[in-house]
Amino acid sequence: MKVLVMGAGQLARMMALAGAPLNISVLAYDVNSQRVMHPVTGQVFDETLEQAVANADVVSSEFEHIPYPVQAVCEASGKFKPNSRAIKAGGDRRQEKALLDAAGVANAGYRIVQTETEFKAAINELGLPLVLKSALAGYDGKGQWRLKRLEDAQVIWQDIEAFMAGADHTLPQAIVAEQFVRFDREVSLVGARNEHGDTVVYPLTENHHVNGVLAVSTALPSESALQQQAKQMFDAVANELNYVGVLALEFFQVGDKLLVNEIAPRVHNSGHWTQQGADTCQFENHLRAVCGLPLGSTALVRPTVMVNILGEDYVNPAVLSLPSCHLHWYGKGKRPGRKMGHINICGATPKEMAARFSALSALLPEASFPEVAEVAAALQQRVKAL
Amino acid sequence: MKVLVMGAGQLARMMALAGAPLNISVLAYDVNSQRVMHPVTGQVFDETLEQAVANADVVSSEFEHIPYPVQAVCEASGKFKPNSRAIKAGGDRRQEKALLDAAGVANAGYRIVQTETEFKAAINELGLPLVLKSALAGYDGKGQWRLKRLEDAQVIWQDIEAFMAGADHTLPQAIVAEQFVRFDREVSLVGARNEHGDTVVYPLTENHHVNGVLAVSTALPSESALQQQAKQMFDAVANELNYVGVLALEFFQVGDKLLVNEIAPRVHNSGHWTQQGADTCQFENHLRAVCGLPLGSTALVRPTVMVNILGEDYVNPAVLSLPSCHLHWYGKGKRPGRKMGHINICGATPKEMAARFSALSALLPEASFPEVAEVAAALQQRVKAL
Repeated sequence: MKVLVMGAGQLARMMALAGAPLNISVLAYDVNSQRVMHPVTGQVFDETLEQAVANADVVSSEFEHIPYPVQAVCEASGKFKPNSRAIKAGGDRRQEKALLDAAGVANAGYRIVQTETEFKAAINELGLPLVLKSALAGYDGKGQWRLKRLEDAQVIWQDIEAFMAGADHTLPQAIVAEQFVRFDREVSLVGARNEHGDTVVYPLTENHHVNGVLAVSTALPSESALQQQAKQMFDAVANELNYVGVLALEFFQVGDKLLVNEIAPRVHNSGHWTQQGADTCQFENHLRAVCGLPLGSTALVRPTVMVNILGEDYVNPAVLSLPSCHLHWYGKGKRPGRKMGHINICGATPKEMAARFSALSALLPEASFPEVAEVAAALQQRVKAL
Repeated sequence: MKVLVMGAGQLARMMALAGAPLNISVLAYDVNSQRVMHPVTGQVFDETLEQAVANADVVSSEFEHIPYPVQAVCEASGKFKPNSRAIKAGGDRRQEKALLDAAGVANAGYRIVQTETEFKAAINELGLPLVLKSALAGYDGKGQWRLKRLEDAQVIWQDIEAFMAGADHTLPQAIVAEQFVRFDREVSLVGARNEHGDTVVYPLTENHHVNGVLAVSTALPSESALQQQAKQMFDAVANELNYVGVLALEFFQVGDKLLVNEIAPRVHNSGHWTQQGADTCQFENHLRAVCGLPLGSTALVRPTVMVNILGEDYVNPAVLSLPSCHLHWYGKGKRPGRKMGHINICGATPKEMAARFSALSALLPEASFPEVAEVAAALQQRVKAL
């Protein structure tokens, strides 16, 4: 099978590595350079998008910000999995919110804002604090504002207007104004749905963000009630989209309730732990789903923590001396804040995993891995009680 | 790091897949076509062997039958790991036997035979039955004879003479005549040694051969006395060779004693289960060893069985529905008896693994997977007692 992936980053790369043993060859289309390439070797192929789509058995995606004309080519082929509606819902917060409402899953109250009048109305109707997010091209904390006090509204609105004016979009920009959720923790659910509508999900993953970017994901044996609630919401969203492939839902947990924060129509950073910790990793399951192969078991094999490597192209090689510690570099050039790789570390039990994670965090400098040591210490405290 | 591997088959391919996450890029030199290529994508590079060796940080190997002039180029670079002596010991049974004697590890009694007089002397001195193996280019059951009755000696010697005359070797061929070992089972030990002389070994693997070719390998929690005996022999051989990389030892087990049958100076088919069942797979550990990175934990994470796919380019996709069942295709063209891929299947316990293996074997037709169902049935019987 030949799979063409829109986007030539680390997710396409890890799909290619997971696909090779299944005789699934993965090529990537870099939407910026408009080149077809191998996402591991970087080999460039002299093909247009249209030719590459024609040569592929399946067309898929590693990200949601695919230009609409490119999506149109993919969708017209009849091979695009997940479909363009799903990709667009991931790339436009307006469509995402409409999807969550249509699927009937809980999410934070919101208004769509394009004018100052609508901005003021949103403040009145939703109350403060508000989180303001650009509808398009906002991810990893970019294009987001927090309005806590009414007296800051004017300044923030000016900033938003400048952002909207400056954004170079072929599509109309807008802001989604959302009620701020005082969450207890952030969790995510990664799962897969096939063409027959079967779904499988991994255990809920606990996520720790630093400056809006994922820093650490922890996969422990799941709490069954919460897992069930998340699975129902996953099924509702995936079914509403007639989704095929791996889909991720990010949640705010408030008490024992989950609210969907956002969806990602793709393999997800918070699912990278599955490479070492799950029976079948998310990359393989995505390929199985889009290629019409049986979905693989999503069982947790070992409690696992994933630590992102951001903006660094070096870690102390001593980390490889730790048992069950696996490095995953993306082969990318170094740039501040850039996702360069990740580390997975597992244990036979949550306690063993937490102890190893502490040993790992001691090898990761605070400057490059902010808050990781605290997360490790907190986890060790927590698993003592287990 | 850039690693150039002599040989462009499945072992180089799986090294490349294991190396990518460590930012180790693996290229392969196909000694037959004399081309440098990517062992996963097949991309051909316009480089000579000498240029490729110069461009690599490390030169390694996926097989032992590398032409001596090619080995000389590798060895001269000072980057060849394991070294040429180790490769030659794997590729020439005379050197292998001398190595085993030098390392002081138990192996079957033998004589080197080049003439009919030596053949007759070997029969007299070693007794019958004898196993006769060509010193060079014999593997997977090729170039082997069994002499059980004295009256067959004449016919077999004629066959051996024809074989030696027909062999197109730049090196002098010979026969190693070995005492036949009435073994209880065949096991192997895969391990790694780094430049500092540190060694790690995986649990002993039980192997089932059909017509001289590996069919099934089973990795269970190891019996400690036997494991210790095997580890000592591994260390003796690896130290004698000043070995760097993954090395495999194949043993005959007789009672509670191990005899080395042969060595393989490379990652080994009986270590493929480590991809799913061990903390660090053999391909990653080989690269760690030759690249000077810390060796990874070889702990058994889950009992695992590996089943070879020989001569077939199709298996029932339903196998992917079984939990913990992973397909590994090599992307090769179909040819009778050719190693085309393998299947790994694991369980949390030996019992669970054996039950899943039985379910798997029911999906594998006897004609293409001879004896696999029997091995599965026998394993299920055996683990009942555990």
